[in-house]
Amino acid sequence: MVSATAIILGAAVLALVWAAIQFLAISKIPVKSNEGGEADETTGLTSEGGDADATTERLLEIYTAIYEGAESFLKAEYTVCFWFVLVFSAIVLILVSWGTGWDWVRGAFTMVSFVLGAGTSIVSGYLGMKVAVYSNVRTTVSAQKSGWTACFNTAFRAGAVMGFALCGLGILMLYLTMLVYRTHYPQPEEWIYLTECLTGYGLGGSSIAMFGRVGGGIYTKAADVGADLVGKVVHGIPEDDPRNPATIADNVGDNVGDVAGMGSDLFGSFAESTCAALVIGSSVGVSDGWDAMVFPIIVSGVGVAVCLVCSFLATDILPVRKEEHVETALKVQLISTTLLMIPAIFLTAFGFLPTQFALKAVVGETELTIAPWMAASCVIMGTVGGLIIGLITEYFTSHSYRPVREVADACKTGPATNMIYGIALGYKSVIIPVVVLALVIYGSFRLCDMYGVALAAIGFLSNLATGLTIDVYGPVCDNAGGIAEMAELDPAVREKTDALDAAGNTTAAIGKGFAIGSAALVSLALFGAFVTRIRHSSDDALFSDGVNMLEPLTFAFLIIGGMIPFAFAAMTMKSVGFAAMMMVMEVQRQFDERPHLLDANPTERPDYDACIKISTEASLKEMLPPGAMVILTPLLTGILFGVNALSGLLVGALIAAVQLAISMSNSGGAWDNAKKYIEKASPDSDLKGKGSDIHKAAVVGDTVGDPFKDTSGPALNIVMKLMAVLSLVFADTFYAINNGGGLFHMA
Amino acid sequence: MVSATAIILGAAVLALVWAAIQFLAISKIPVKSNEGGEADETTGLTSEGGDADATTERLLEIYTAIYEGAESFLKAEYTVCFWFVLVFSAIVLILVSWGTGWDWVRGAFTMVSFVLGAGTSIVSGYLGMKVAVYSNVRTTVSAQKSGWTACFNTAFRAGAVMGFALCGLGILMLYLTMLVYRTHYPQPEEWIYLTECLTGYGLGGSSIAMFGRVGGGIYTKAADVGADLVGKVVHGIPEDDPRNPATIADNVGDNVGDVAGMGSDLFGSFAESTCAALVIGSSVGVSDGWDAMVFPIIVSGVGVAVCLVCSFLATDILPVRKEEHVETALKVQLISTTLLMIPAIFLTAFGFLPTQFALKAVVGETELTIAPWMAASCVIMGTVGGLIIGLITEYFTSHSYRPVREVADACKTGPATNMIYGIALGYKSVIIPVVVLALVIYGSFRLCDMYGVALAAIGFLSNLATGLTIDVYGPVCDNAGGIAEMAELDPAVREKTDALDAAGNTTAAIGKGFAIGSAALVSLALFGAFVTRIRHSSDDALFSDGVNMLEPLTFAFLIIGGMIPFAFAAMTMKSVGFAAMMMVMEVQRQFDERPHLLDANPTERPDYDACIKISTEASLKEMLPPGAMVILTPLLTGILFGVNALSGLLVGALIAAVQLAISMSNSGGAWDNAKKYIEKASPDSDLKGKGSDIHKAAVVGDTVGDPFKDTSGPALNIVMKLMAVLSLVFADTFYAINNGGGLFHMA
Repeated sequence: MVSATAIILGAAVLALVWAAIQFLAISKIPVKSNEGGEADETTGLTSEGGDADATTERLLEIYTAIYEGAESFLKAEYTVCFWFVLVFSAIVLILVSWGTGWDWVRGAFTMVSFVLGAGTSIVSGYLGMKVAVYSNVRTTVSAQKSGWTACFNTAFRAGAVMGFALCGLGILMLYLTMLVYRTHYPQPEEWIYLTECLTGYGLGGSSIAMFGRVGGGIYTKAADVGADLVGKVVHGIPEDDPRNPATIADNVGDNVGDVAGMGSDLFGSFAESTCAALVIGSSVGVSDGWDAMVFPIIVSGVGVAVCLVCSFLATDILPVRKEEHVETALKVQLISTTLLMIPAIFLTAFGFLPTQFALKAVVGETELTIAPWMAASCVIMGTVGGLIIGLITEYFTSHSYRPVREVADACKTGPATNMIYGIALGYKSVIIPVVVLALVIYGSFRLCDMYGVALAAIGFLSNLATGLTIDVYGPVCDNAGGIAEMAELDPAVREKTDALDAAGNTTAAIGKGFAIGSAALVSLALFGAFVTRIRHSSDDALFSDGVNMLEPLTFAFLIIGGMIPFAFAAMTMKSVGFAAMMMVMEVQRQFDERPHLLDANPTERPDYDACIKISTEASLKEMLPPGAMVILTPLLTGILFGVNALSGLLVGALIAAVQLAISMSNSGGAWDNAKKYIEKASPDSDLKGKGSDIHKAAVVGDTVGDPFKDTSGPALNIVMKLMAVLSLVFADTFYAINNGGGLFHMA
Repeated sequence: MVSATAIILGAAVLALVWAAIQFLAISKIPVKSNEGGEADETTGLTSEGGDADATTERLLEIYTAIYEGAESFLKAEYTVCFWFVLVFSAIVLILVSWGTGWDWVRGAFTMVSFVLGAGTSIVSGYLGMKVAVYSNVRTTVSAQKSGWTACFNTAFRAGAVMGFALCGLGILMLYLTMLVYRTHYPQPEEWIYLTECLTGYGLGGSSIAMFGRVGGGIYTKAADVGADLVGKVVHGIPEDDPRNPATIADNVGDNVGDVAGMGSDLFGSFAESTCAALVIGSSVGVSDGWDAMVFPIIVSGVGVAVCLVCSFLATDILPVRKEEHVETALKVQLISTTLLMIPAIFLTAFGFLPTQFALKAVVGETELTIAPWMAASCVIMGTVGGLIIGLITEYFTSHSYRPVREVADACKTGPATNMIYGIALGYKSVIIPVVVLALVIYGSFRLCDMYGVALAAIGFLSNLATGLTIDVYGPVCDNAGGIAEMAELDPAVREKTDALDAAGNTTAAIGKGFAIGSAALVSLALFGAFVTRIRHSSDDALFSDGVNMLEPLTFAFLIIGGMIPFAFAAMTMKSVGFAAMMMVMEVQRQFDERPHLLDANPTERPDYDACIKISTEASLKEMLPPGAMVILTPLLTGILFGVNALSGLLVGALIAAVQLAISMSNSGGAWDNAKKYIEKASPDSDLKGKGSDIHKAAVVGDTVGDPFKDTSGPALNIVMKLMAVLSLVFADTFYAINNGGGLFHMA
């Protein structure tokens, strides 16, 4: 039989090679306005205009502007991250070493993992941005050709580059680190230390994800909201109109927020769920060897292969030939990968897990006996649960179903009823996902204790490569449309990219459902690992009967924990609102000073860079306070008030964050699609269509929804995960302070 | 020394007498348009017009219309409540009797308490509505006089009638019930059963409060939002303009929702906190007698006396002579009662509690020794905590401070940024109240275990009479303004009532802060009592080491519990949105069919009754699903899944409800006051004032805020309390089902 190492490294390399192949396919498309297609009557911008060359030049110009904007933002953002990593790795080194009785090796290994996790996250985000920018313009060009296959495939392949590269890189770095650490910890009894040091990898990934999601989220939405407010409301020009000074910033935002930020987020989830499963399952290694212990990583490796096979369905076996095929193709990806994962997981479990193995329960003295079918079932519960949550999310955010149509109807009586209906929709959409999560938690917890919860989280993310592909596909299409508009191509091109984007919007919402659900499971698993660590460190003095919520300190921190997501959402939303208002003022200033910018065929371009600068500066400044809150709260709680307080904090935050994240993402998605639904309506229908008062009311909802769905909502994932992984990494340190009582001796 | 019974009954009678005196003072004001005041140039409505008689007639006409609308709604609502009480008292009788091994006495006593609690709540609500309607028009008349003292005092006295009558009635009924039950349970050892049967009183109070808050809340906001949308947005007439068909329904709503509903809510809190304290402290009776056991009720009695004394500050010692005095007068009430309560509580504790007494901790085997100062400190923590939360609420909702002004500024860039800022404000406003609550919980829990938490809840509500006075004052002024507008009195009258109302808005927000904070403590105390009951019933087999949140079922239900408040908010918000849209359509129909209704001096009145009917029917229909959810969820969870699941559900709901309730109430209050702030701005200022686009953006926020602050937000209080008290009442029943494992044998 093949060894685990062969499979894991093989899968990682396969993923990277596949990403390279997809990239090659994209790179074959020249950035050149298409002359043979149905859309070659492009309107030139300058007086020489009218010919394809001028358009090509314009395309290149826009491409360069977006590329440079994204590059300069990411550089600035990653500079901040660099300093953060530098300072925080010193903190990790010192606190972990001190917490383990000055075991410098564990401190250093944890620090190295942290740096590697952070580095991989940065590379993933940067790579994603590059690929996306590279592919946007090529998608636009492909959309000039007749038929849907070419442009869909281009955007889909762009997603695949990101999806597979990230998975490959994540698995590769994680596993290589493990192999290196194993040379220092060769004995199975020591692997518990190995896996503990590895948790730094999750912490690094999630820290960068926090900054990426928040910084990128503020950037993209400040630009988007700003462009919307000015363009649509104040001057009646579309958001991607080249005369709108915020338009390049808006398109840059799609790449740095929706691609780079989201990539870092999901990389973080992957890293953390793997670390949680490894820490909890490290005792498996003692009894049954390395290959059994690394079962969670094998699942991820197998997932890559499954996703690769299924991706042929979209690009080759059932290619997209009509507009209606687009959404189906993406949905087929999600469903087919989930279905194919089921037998794959069973085979993996029976192949690599011993026929039975023992695990100690997180609470009490019970020893569980686990068979492969039990572990496989936990993984599958996660995979299937993810799909169900995804499909429910689709029901609540796609305008093919009643909820979004009700929101659209509510626009008839103005923006206020639109808001009320949209918020109510978000709150209501929480019900089924939470029940599904509760079922997955209960089922996996009962079957395999905390190890089961961690496996379920792995299961949620097992088709990550596909999830990421689809997630990246959306912003690429969005940007392709923006470029078409800015380059003043034939409106038919824009219509095509809009149709591609609409499907992407819904599937992006599905992706968010996945991300939030997996984050909840990951956080619970990390919390379980934290409790196990503390129990172990305290020789069963703490938490051996579980975590009592009627401990005064724990209860007090339960409600404080529940407050954190609200405070976080408040900070991030206000940052977006504030930056958007600055953007509006800047744009207005430009129009006031140079009114001819608004001419039908202006001879001068607006100052795009000023808007890019506002977004960049605002997001870098505004990402720090919420980031600091999320990192410092668990750290200070653990240090000052001890582990009982920290337990309450983590669980409270988890409970509130799940609900708020789901509701915010879905409200935002629903508003966006309600607006699109109204735009599609004819002026004679009862929804009156584009430009009507009903449409204006819908735009208000969409604008409010922007920070909901792309800044605060998805960043709440990271809030729960990051707080939990941080607690796990510093578990020994917290216990070392007055036996878990904190500096205030609260235990 | 006086006996506890003398003090309690004395205080209750005093409160009732004082309410009667205040009522007499109001009734001396004749409903007659004032000819001597500065505002006697009233504009007559009909062609005979111009004289005071026509105005008087008009005043009486409006008064009658509002009175009849309110009366008919409450009758309809209480008919639903009657059937609910009938059916549910049978359920209480049977389930409690069965759960206690067919102890029919306990079943019957619990049922009688339930009926009495429900009855008292209905009487309180009805009485409040009567007094408010009676006083509204008299406040309008008083506002015609020169000076501020008369009109302020009239509105304040109306509040006092409700405040003192409700407190008096609540204490009287509760205590008399106890005295009657004592004849059956004369031995101190049996008092535990006595107090348990008494919990039905809290359940009854809270059930009616649920329907009152939700039904009344939907009624008032459907009418308000409907009137706003049509009046301000569609036709440009003010919301209280007599030509607006929804205007009477809007004014009826103030009385049935903001007065009757809120009265029932706070009565419920009072009843539940007292019941929780009595159940937890019942063992005190065994060692130290009846007077020590009823200490919590004595505190409430003393509170009445303190509130009575302080009320002279507002009406006589420092009467309101200028506009600026209004807000100060109300704030002085809150602060003075809190300060005076501190020595009063100490005296009561040292007077009635033994120098030390023992209490068993809710978790573990610890026996706590409690001294009077400790009990007094818990009560005081509650009282002071309530004041701090109130003042923070004021900071976030009054336009004297930065947060609301920022929201007003955000209106400059349209309704979307207004929404983003307002929601962010609400989320942010959660931070300090939650920290204060956590401190109160930790402090009181550490000092006196769960008994301390219950005492803190009592402390929160100790100046309930004053809180209610101020809460009722607001809608009375609001209605007085509406009447002035509808009767077309001099605009100066409206300006005066508006100024009175603005202060009332802020203090109403303070009152909501109180209500939410106390609800959180009450729920925790009730949960503690529930755990104690189960522990006792199971002979320490369950919960003796606390409630472990890492029990799979408990954790699964923690996140389900966290979902309940969101689902509840979704249902109630959507109900308001739906009913408001129906209202808009009805109004539009009237205007379309009879366009001359919009003439400057119409000869015909719109069909007010049609709008009243829509609000009534919508609210009665729409209050049932959320009410059923809140009642059935804990009941079915306990019956099907057992007590571990139920524990998770209660705590999860508590954590999420606190945050959501505070944020929704404060967002709503802030939007309302941001709108008022913009209305006060002059057209030359940067906020542009009434009628501008900035104002229109503010109106959108205000409209969204209506269901936030007056329907969903405050009703979330009741969600947590009702779920907790229901679990406590049926604790024995749940344990009786498979030893707390539920029908599904989950334990």
